[in-house]
Amino acid sequence: MRAVDIIARKRDGHALTTAEIDWFVAGFTRGDVPDYQAAAWLMAVLLRGMDDRETADLTMAMARSGDMLDLEGVARPVVDKHSTGGVGDKITLVVAPMVAATGLPVGKMSGRGLGFSGGTLDKLESFDGLSINLTTEQFIQQLRAIGLVIAGQSADLAPADGKLYALRDVTATVESVPLIASSIMSKKIAAGADAIVLDVKVGRGAFMKSEQEALTLARAMVDIGQGLGRRVSAVVSSMDQPLGHAIGNALEVREAIETLQGRGPQDLLTVALAVGGQMLSLGGRADSFEAGEAALRATIADGSALAKLREMVVAQGGDGRQVDDPSRLPRAPVVLALPAGREGYITHLDPLEMALAAVGLGAGRARKGDPIDPAVGLVVGPKVGQHIHGGETLVTIHAANDEAAEAAAERALAACTIGPAPVQAPLLIRHIIA
Amino acid sequence: MRAVDIIARKRDGHALTTAEIDWFVAGFTRGDVPDYQAAAWLMAVLLRGMDDRETADLTMAMARSGDMLDLEGVARPVVDKHSTGGVGDKITLVVAPMVAATGLPVGKMSGRGLGFSGGTLDKLESFDGLSINLTTEQFIQQLRAIGLVIAGQSADLAPADGKLYALRDVTATVESVPLIASSIMSKKIAAGADAIVLDVKVGRGAFMKSEQEALTLARAMVDIGQGLGRRVSAVVSSMDQPLGHAIGNALEVREAIETLQGRGPQDLLTVALAVGGQMLSLGGRADSFEAGEAALRATIADGSALAKLREMVVAQGGDGRQVDDPSRLPRAPVVLALPAGREGYITHLDPLEMALAAVGLGAGRARKGDPIDPAVGLVVGPKVGQHIHGGETLVTIHAANDEAAEAAAERALAACTIGPAPVQAPLLIRHIIA
Repeated sequence: MRAVDIIARKRDGHALTTAEIDWFVAGFTRGDVPDYQAAAWLMAVLLRGMDDRETADLTMAMARSGDMLDLEGVARPVVDKHSTGGVGDKITLVVAPMVAATGLPVGKMSGRGLGFSGGTLDKLESFDGLSINLTTEQFIQQLRAIGLVIAGQSADLAPADGKLYALRDVTATVESVPLIASSIMSKKIAAGADAIVLDVKVGRGAFMKSEQEALTLARAMVDIGQGLGRRVSAVVSSMDQPLGHAIGNALEVREAIETLQGRGPQDLLTVALAVGGQMLSLGGRADSFEAGEAALRATIADGSALAKLREMVVAQGGDGRQVDDPSRLPRAPVVLALPAGREGYITHLDPLEMALAAVGLGAGRARKGDPIDPAVGLVVGPKVGQHIHGGETLVTIHAANDEAAEAAAERALAACTIGPAPVQAPLLIRHIIA
Repeated sequence: MRAVDIIARKRDGHALTTAEIDWFVAGFTRGDVPDYQAAAWLMAVLLRGMDDRETADLTMAMARSGDMLDLEGVARPVVDKHSTGGVGDKITLVVAPMVAATGLPVGKMSGRGLGFSGGTLDKLESFDGLSINLTTEQFIQQLRAIGLVIAGQSADLAPADGKLYALRDVTATVESVPLIASSIMSKKIAAGADAIVLDVKVGRGAFMKSEQEALTLARAMVDIGQGLGRRVSAVVSSMDQPLGHAIGNALEVREAIETLQGRGPQDLLTVALAVGGQMLSLGGRADSFEAGEAALRATIADGSALAKLREMVVAQGGDGRQVDDPSRLPRAPVVLALPAGREGYITHLDPLEMALAAVGLGAGRARKGDPIDPAVGLVVGPKVGQHIHGGETLVTIHAANDEAAEAAAERALAACTIGPAPVQAPLLIRHIIA
């Protein structure tokens, strides 16, 4: 086979064979197919598309490009979750302890934040001493011992995906459903997942801006996974305003702990229960979504979910006292409460602008590898549809210094709209695809 | 500007601005825009297209990427010709001396053959001692002294085109009208042409297989050139059978000399007069095509065209006696005449198969840089529409050894079809676009 012929076939709109996809991905991973040929191929894929069979083939070719984690005998079934990324999305910190507390083991490899989207690893590192760098052996040992582990990628999982993603980022070939779907699914499959719940975010604070795009992506990922013999479902949820109130690492950890204490924000709990319910259902631990939801609520009521989080934090070298008393988490020196200029109803909280204000404070990264400050961020007061009095706190800024606080304040205030009439809060759970 | 944004705009089907195209091409030439970004961009251009203004901008950006030859004061106007490549196409060897003999200087930078398509430089090197490696100064000096020079590219002309072409070749992005048209025109404009006659070949022995493709390309190149203030016309001519009888370097030189002696094949003369007539017309040396054709025929009748060729060969270090007596040109040791198996009319002479038989003999190159043998090739007897008796010579093979001759014989014979009824020879000059 020759790379140029495979590129030409995709350029001309043909479906590639399994053998062609395997050959191309393997050659690219080894470096035999150079970046420039892969770049032309990616653009042809973006503009010509891929059918379901090709997308599944691409997923498996990337999954097989490195180690394939085998968790057989450690936890069966292995249920994973994945969020496509949103603002204030601390769902993993809530749902993983809940699900683990019901007895279904959760061993999850998470990522870091980039741009407006936060990352679970960054949030976890708010705990003093907590390490997300576990070896595969440590990962498996902890999963076996306490049934809950969240860490960075230890093994060499789906290196073809990492290499292709870096190339997509600089060649304007990110926005392709088959490429996005296969990228996500290849890592999950390489990480040994038997069942996967996808939390596909849609709205201004998500990568997918329209419901149609989100549904298409969700459907594509479910099809890939099911086609490859995995149990997969997707929750399509709204990201038209921040999820919960907190944006910023330690602030989000604190909100997650409050949620596990039974006093978290309703929207966060709703999405966590939807995702967690699907995880229990796919994992064979609940006959119905309702039964799953009840089991999850029980882990909050009896404190077992919070205890499981504490167990995990301690197992990974973190300070468990910060779970018991979140005021011990990193705190910003400057806290600035921004009062509402007028009385009325919150009609819009732009999640993207809020997130960029938080990135400006140092809570996120503009570029890969940038350092982050766990203490900073912002906390939204009332959410869309709620009432606010003039002078009541609209947003609270947590900053490293006054200057940063002022800049973030301006951006955050501009992201809030108050109107005279009550509006309906956006519907949170839009679709469940199973 | 950022390369990724320019790629994204073309990916989404937008027209790029002049500034964007200039920035991208300049960055690519310097190496600041890496190959993989250029490759993704090329695929986006191929699949999304470029409008006339963009194509003209790309042409000028590539033309300006290196030296711009200034022939002002040497020859004015500078009239160039370009063939898109065909089988047995020795038009330059006939038309350049004819036009120069009328007093209109011809200073031409030609190329080498690749694949089925021959190259003027390879043909010229059939003359013992002739050099095609002239410095820019030597090129200008000879143009001034005798009004005729054909050489390889001396100056660093349109390096962006060379670099992009190499990338297109390995990324399946060759077959794009805006990319082909701008590639050709950028070199002509960098070489200082005021007026350009394009000989666009169409048929099985050409790169453009359909008349529609050829017309589209011809129109695109004429539009680019005229948009940039050059006088440009295009001759679209048939390549459904070899042009003339000879395929192979010294064999074609010999046929060109015979044509300048007034005893060449009719089809070759017809195309040469069409192209040459356009050159005289664009160069302001003929009021009408008919007047131009008459002037050109006169250079054959009075021997001035042949004398001009001899002058050029000698000026470039070649052996002028080979012009006077073409039997002194390189000759192959094995000459094999292939008789027709039956009596009838020639209905088809596949030019592509004929050319590949000649490449197999060593007359052309499968890969860039392969050595060629000037002596070998093949000579077709009767052309399509002509009658042949059983036993009469259909094709003559000129080979380095018996084995090569046998292999070529088989391929060449399979490329000839003889039928019982006379067929019309294909119309040679299909369109003239001015």
